[in-house]
Amino acid sequence: MPDFSSEITVKHIDSMGDDARIASAARVSTKGLDGDGGKVAGLVRALMREGHTSPFEHCVMTVSVEAPIFVAREWMRHRTQSYSEISARYTTLQPKFYRPNEDRPIVQTGKALDYHREEGTIRQVVVTEHRHKWTEEEAWKNYESMLSEGVANEVARNVLPVSVYTQFWATANLGNWFKFLTLRDAPNALFEIRQGAQQVDALIEELWPIAWRAFHDFNGKEEQ
Amino acid sequence: MPDFSSEITVKHIDSMGDDARIASAARVSTKGLDGDGGKVAGLVRALMREGHTSPFEHCVMTVSVEAPIFVAREWMRHRTQSYSEISARYTTLQPKFYRPNEDRPIVQTGKALDYHREEGTIRQVVVTEHRHKWTEEEAWKNYESMLSEGVANEVARNVLPVSVYTQFWATANLGNWFKFLTLRDAPNALFEIRQGAQQVDALIEELWPIAWRAFHDFNGKEEQ
Amino acid sequence: MPDFSSEITVKHIDSMGDDARIASAARVSTKGLDGDGGKVAGLVRALMREGHTSPFEHCVMTVSVEAPIFVAREWMRHRTQSYSEISARYTTLQPKFYRPNEDRPIVQTGKALDYHREEGTIRQVVVTEHRHKWTEEEAWKNYESMLSEGVANEVARNVLPVSVYTQFWATANLGNWFKFLTLRDAPNALFEIRQGAQQVDALIEELWPIAWRAFHDFNGKEEQ
Amino acid sequence: MPDFSSEITVKHIDSMGDDARIASAARVSTKGLDGDGGKVAGLVRALMREGHTSPFEHCVMTVSVEAPIFVAREWMRHRTQSYSEISARYTTLQPKFYRPNEDRPIVQTGKALDYHREEGTIRQVVVTEHRHKWTEEEAWKNYESMLSEGVANEVARNVLPVSVYTQFWATANLGNWFKFLTLRDAPNALFEIRQGAQQVDALIEELWPIAWRAFHDFNGKEEQ
Repeated sequence: MPDFSSEITVKHIDSMGDDARIASAARVSTKGLDGDGGKVAGLVRALMREGHTSPFEHCVMTVSVEAPIFVAREWMRHRTQSYSEISARYTTLQPKFYRPNEDRPIVQTGKALDYHREEGTIRQVVVTEHRHKWTEEEAWKNYESMLSEGVANEVARNVLPVSVYTQFWATANLGNWFKFLTLRDAPNALFEIRQGAQQVDALIEELWPIAWRAFHDFNGKEEQ
Repeated sequence: MPDFSSEITVKHIDSMGDDARIASAARVSTKGLDGDGGKVAGLVRALMREGHTSPFEHCVMTVSVEAPIFVAREWMRHRTQSYSEISARYTTLQPKFYRPNEDRPIVQTGKALDYHREEGTIRQVVVTEHRHKWTEEEAWKNYESMLSEGVANEVARNVLPVSVYTQFWATANLGNWFKFLTLRDAPNALFEIRQGAQQVDALIEELWPIAWRAFHDFNGKEEQ
Repeated sequence: MPDFSSEITVKHIDSMGDDARIASAARVSTKGLDGDGGKVAGLVRALMREGHTSPFEHCVMTVSVEAPIFVAREWMRHRTQSYSEISARYTTLQPKFYRPNEDRPIVQTGKALDYHREEGTIRQVVVTEHRHKWTEEEAWKNYESMLSEGVANEVARNVLPVSVYTQFWATANLGNWFKFLTLRDAPNALFEIRQGAQQVDALIEELWPIAWRAFHDFNGKEEQ
Repeated sequence: MPDFSSEITVKHIDSMGDDARIASAARVSTKGLDGDGGKVAGLVRALMREGHTSPFEHCVMTVSVEAPIFVAREWMRHRTQSYSEISARYTTLQPKFYRPNEDRPIVQTGKALDYHREEGTIRQVVVTEHRHKWTEEEAWKNYESMLSEGVANEVARNVLPVSVYTQFWATANLGNWFKFLTLRDAPNALFEIRQGAQQVDALIEELWPIAWRAFHDFNGKEEQ
């Protein structure tokens, strides 16, 4: 029987560079190759404030992500990241499906460019839960049935819903991770991708605390 | 009731430049801005043969694509194209689903990096057809049920399978369209994306016949 | 004898799409492939205001640029454009050099991230003019001398100053042209690249008047 | 007085990932996030042979480069690297200029797309040396003269030749470093950029010996 989850999981695989590296990269512009980072905090904050993004591009982070396909689809629209994803052509996927939990507001109001979410009624919540379960169980049963008959992975997977979990690595430089956060850790972002973006944000806070602070101070993002 | 299709559709929206434009771009390198294209065919063929790809980047084509989500996912991994896709967050999708037809070999042999396809048995073909239909009909019913209860598009769509059709525009320059074809109009490419790639190939043949001929002559692609 | 100029020249080569195209691309998201552009102006302005940049990527413009190498170097740092440039390896450059004219403020004050320009004194202006002329004439003489001895173009050109004029084509989509303008049509941009950027801005005003208006209204750029 | 050099220098600043990382990234496709790298060498070689480049994108290297501007211009045409370069706008450059040494063949034969180099005569070698020296000394004198009068760095530098040394950091993933090598460590590449490319090649050999071996075995590059 399939598993159900409401979690998006982002884990740190590796990273390169720290706050001092950003300052050193900036010093290349004014001191040449031997320029030390000097006073890191003031310089990093000034770079962020003035929109000088190049020095942030010499820091890099790889994360592993476990998320439903509908989240992966949005994530991979970011063309400045490198991806390696589990292949439903070459392998059999795991029976794990996304189901909104009670924190997920399931009613939308407003139009495409002016968009809000609200909590659902009890009836809406129950319908959502059961219709997810219904489809996902049927889909998994049919997927397994085709596989057991010897049908190719890449054909059988056609019936799996976009709520099935996929897994991938994503590598980007820090400048592009910040652009990702600007779009995906935002009130009008898809609820579930924001869960992932907030974990990216927390990893950056840990690895590049000065740059992280500057990003939040100068990019007008309200924290929540 | 849902519609079923085995088609991937690629249509020309707009394009910029022709074979002579490629030659003119190359002449910029040797003659400056006023360099005319001169003898177009010989120059374009030499550029392709020697791997000088920059001159091909000043020609551009936009296409519209209608394809199941599992094809769109592979297509959009190409980070050198610009995409505008119908949003399942902001709108209700159409009840149209992919189902492999009899031309689609549904059995796979070999391993991930040495991969082949074969026709299925009658039993396998029938199982595939019916399990697709089963899941897709259940999924559509559950999607509509949630929508009718007032659940948001972006939540209800979670249950739709990756075989549901999506629609998007893709814009790329000719150099990057050729890279797309090298990967996607190839024997080991996913069967369905190759159907799309071959339509891109046919559009290029019509719009840039000299470059198209050179691409096929010098890129070692067997034609089929 | 060399020619001297203070001009940066940007000319339209070709373009694809208009304001209605932007609206049509946006309608793909909400209506699918058959979505017409509807009310163009309101939609294009809303896209710009909300930072939805994808629909602008299906419009493309190629320009030809004639500018000194020090301008070309900054321009080509933009990694989202396609370039074809006259090659000093394969051809002999023209004897045309940049010299600041009287409009060009030649004194700088402030530091790297807080940078201003002022007019020079008469003495500074005259020194600048004559030292430019001196170097450029010597450089051209030495370039020609090596060429007349049969030394390769790609070696002889080493002595040419970054004020020598080069020529190139640049192709980008409208979204990326706007990013170019944000950085290069700005008070702290290099004076000479801003001359080029303002010509790009004027071409966009002519080709995409609604998008141009929205860009200037919502990107906080003061017009001058 | 200026210094003269014939060297291009590439130094390792930092890097991320090793051969096992490439294998682990590939295993994500078939095993999911917990896939270990398994037998590294065979897998990495198979990926290279089959042109599966994504797994190489999770390894990254930053180098510092000291090279004349004419080399930096070619290098920075690679749009998949991140650059931080010493700014001739904000700082005064060092008096260091490139001069071809005796290893540098200074005569070119053939045409743009069929290009060869030969040694020069003694006369050509001496002319080249002296004309370089002549121009570079005059240029430096005039640069310093303008600076001493209080003219801005960003104006005075106009007279410096493209043989003046610049300094920059370049960060790219391993897949894109290999593409750089394919173009720049090649017989028809510019002699001086090839000197730099060969140092990049040597760094990769040290850091990713298996991938390096596979690159040279399967990319048809003759080693020299």
